[in-house]
Amino acid sequence: MQSSQIRLNKATGEWVIYAPSRRKRPQDFQQACQEKSLVDHSQDTCPFCHQNNAHPEPSILEMFNSESTNWQTRVVSNKFPALNFYENPKRILEGIYMTIPGYGHHEVVIESPDHQLTIATMSVWEIEIIIETYRQRYLKLMADPKIMMVIIFRNHGQGAGASLRHPHSQIIATSIVPSHRRIQEAEAQRYFDHWAECVYCHILNFEIEEQKRIIVENDLFVAFVPFAAEVPFEIWIIPRHHQADFGSITPEEKTAFAMILKDVLSRLYNKLNNPDYNYVINTAARYKAEEPQLHWYCQIRPRLTTPAGFELGSGMSINPSIPEADAAFLRMNN
Amino acid sequence: MQSSQIRLNKATGEWVIYAPSRRKRPQDFQQACQEKSLVDHSQDTCPFCHQNNAHPEPSILEMFNSESTNWQTRVVSNKFPALNFYENPKRILEGIYMTIPGYGHHEVVIESPDHQLTIATMSVWEIEIIIETYRQRYLKLMADPKIMMVIIFRNHGQGAGASLRHPHSQIIATSIVPSHRRIQEAEAQRYFDHWAECVYCHILNFEIEEQKRIIVENDLFVAFVPFAAEVPFEIWIIPRHHQADFGSITPEEKTAFAMILKDVLSRLYNKLNNPDYNYVINTAARYKAEEPQLHWYCQIRPRLTTPAGFELGSGMSINPSIPEADAAFLRMNN
Repeated sequence: MQSSQIRLNKATGEWVIYAPSRRKRPQDFQQACQEKSLVDHSQDTCPFCHQNNAHPEPSILEMFNSESTNWQTRVVSNKFPALNFYENPKRILEGIYMTIPGYGHHEVVIESPDHQLTIATMSVWEIEIIIETYRQRYLKLMADPKIMMVIIFRNHGQGAGASLRHPHSQIIATSIVPSHRRIQEAEAQRYFDHWAECVYCHILNFEIEEQKRIIVENDLFVAFVPFAAEVPFEIWIIPRHHQADFGSITPEEKTAFAMILKDVLSRLYNKLNNPDYNYVINTAARYKAEEPQLHWYCQIRPRLTTPAGFELGSGMSINPSIPEADAAFLRMNN
Repeated sequence: MQSSQIRLNKATGEWVIYAPSRRKRPQDFQQACQEKSLVDHSQDTCPFCHQNNAHPEPSILEMFNSESTNWQTRVVSNKFPALNFYENPKRILEGIYMTIPGYGHHEVVIESPDHQLTIATMSVWEIEIIIETYRQRYLKLMADPKIMMVIIFRNHGQGAGASLRHPHSQIIATSIVPSHRRIQEAEAQRYFDHWAECVYCHILNFEIEEQKRIIVENDLFVAFVPFAAEVPFEIWIIPRHHQADFGSITPEEKTAFAMILKDVLSRLYNKLNNPDYNYVINTAARYKAEEPQLHWYCQIRPRLTTPAGFELGSGMSINPSIPEADAAFLRMNN
């Protein structure tokens, strides 16, 4: 099998990951248009259910709760990894182009032994264990000096790119920081240099004052629809306390984050009929964890619209919804 | 009805368009997850077929061919416009945020009177008329001094965001230039300042020399899979002659562009079973048309994969295909 590699787009400065382990033959894409069905294993054959031995590789991490001898969450290597940790991330020139062997880690967090659950239907303690699993893997992966960035994300439903039903998240750790992230850092830096304040703290305080786009708050976190949401019902969950690095989350914050994540995802589940969504934990890249202008947050994007040619060409979204109306709808208790 | 507006994301510098004319009620999104079917009007009810009067608004432009008294292409206002030309694009502060009333133009190019055709199955002369229609509207929209950028794009198939079957493209003209485009301009500028050469010319010449990623060439255009293609079978069609501005296309280039566009889209149609795709004509924003470092091109992106949480969080694509293999597959004559 060919190895993963990362190539630089010379015209835009953007990196693209090539993952031959996820590859199809060209002719297989003919089918791909028609059949995009999510594999819905029964519990008897699901590779993530713990009675099955379909995942013979050892666990990277298992977390237990006191009431069971089985694991509650389990981390394994992705069977079709986008990146591989046996590669060496040295830069290679191919004529005028730059390539890096695809160094990195690609892990799956099996979120529960229960095949049927999703975060919206889990209890808060189950979600807390998932967040603790994220935290431990995040710190461990960041301890690898070749890793520059760790992305923790969840794909829920086929339209969000999920290929298995059993509740799971993924973690990808890369040896590079993409230009997209660097541009956000530069914006935050410029803002800080003007205002001597973190732009995310500034936004957070303004949203709390205005209340128009708030969905729900607790002592340590606030969930709101951002003023310039790119898609209908986009939600940010952000810690009140300034914190660039997800790895610095405190035990109290873990509980509060689990509570608000469950609350917000339950609202989507109940009010929008279990929509497909992605969430991602946006946290500081290496060397940025102490920066006063960065602030981690969890970004949830329901997949209710299809970006088309205009979005691809301009990089700008067209949102048919209005953030204030979306927030009001999600805020209602009914 | 509420007017369109454009909001600035304070944290990223990105603009987002809010288009209430395209709006659904929150509860309508419950259905949206399940039913995403493209409206496949019969020819009797299709609003774009010329025997039907469903499009009562006047044509913005009609193009004829010598053999018929009916139009061959027709441009109308989009019935559900993302932007409106009666707005005034003045900046408004809303607390800490910036908004612009949604000034702009949103037009539909009906590409043919024939409901069943698509570009892959049209003749070259029919495609030439479409390109001439693009050119005339492009020049006309750029003559509006409030317009900063014109995006010409095509959504083919439901997975690419199309909502009607009758062959059509769209044109959106905006009063702003999105940060995505400014970043590409800055990359090209830096490259030019280092090398005294247009990065796109440099790429083009290297690709012609290497041949590994070329699909097809003619005297005036080259079609290839870019070295850092973001999705399987991404294709760039680029003029050989340095040209920042699509509006400068010559009559000979129009014919050559029509020929290569048909060739490339026919290969996708035949070899990949008529996949959904978007194409967009990436051309210089206002004041950039004479710049030596910019170069227009047509970017085609088949919609064979689903971007998921990693892509949303990192801005980086994972491509399961390999550009050289994709190009070889499309190059084969069979």
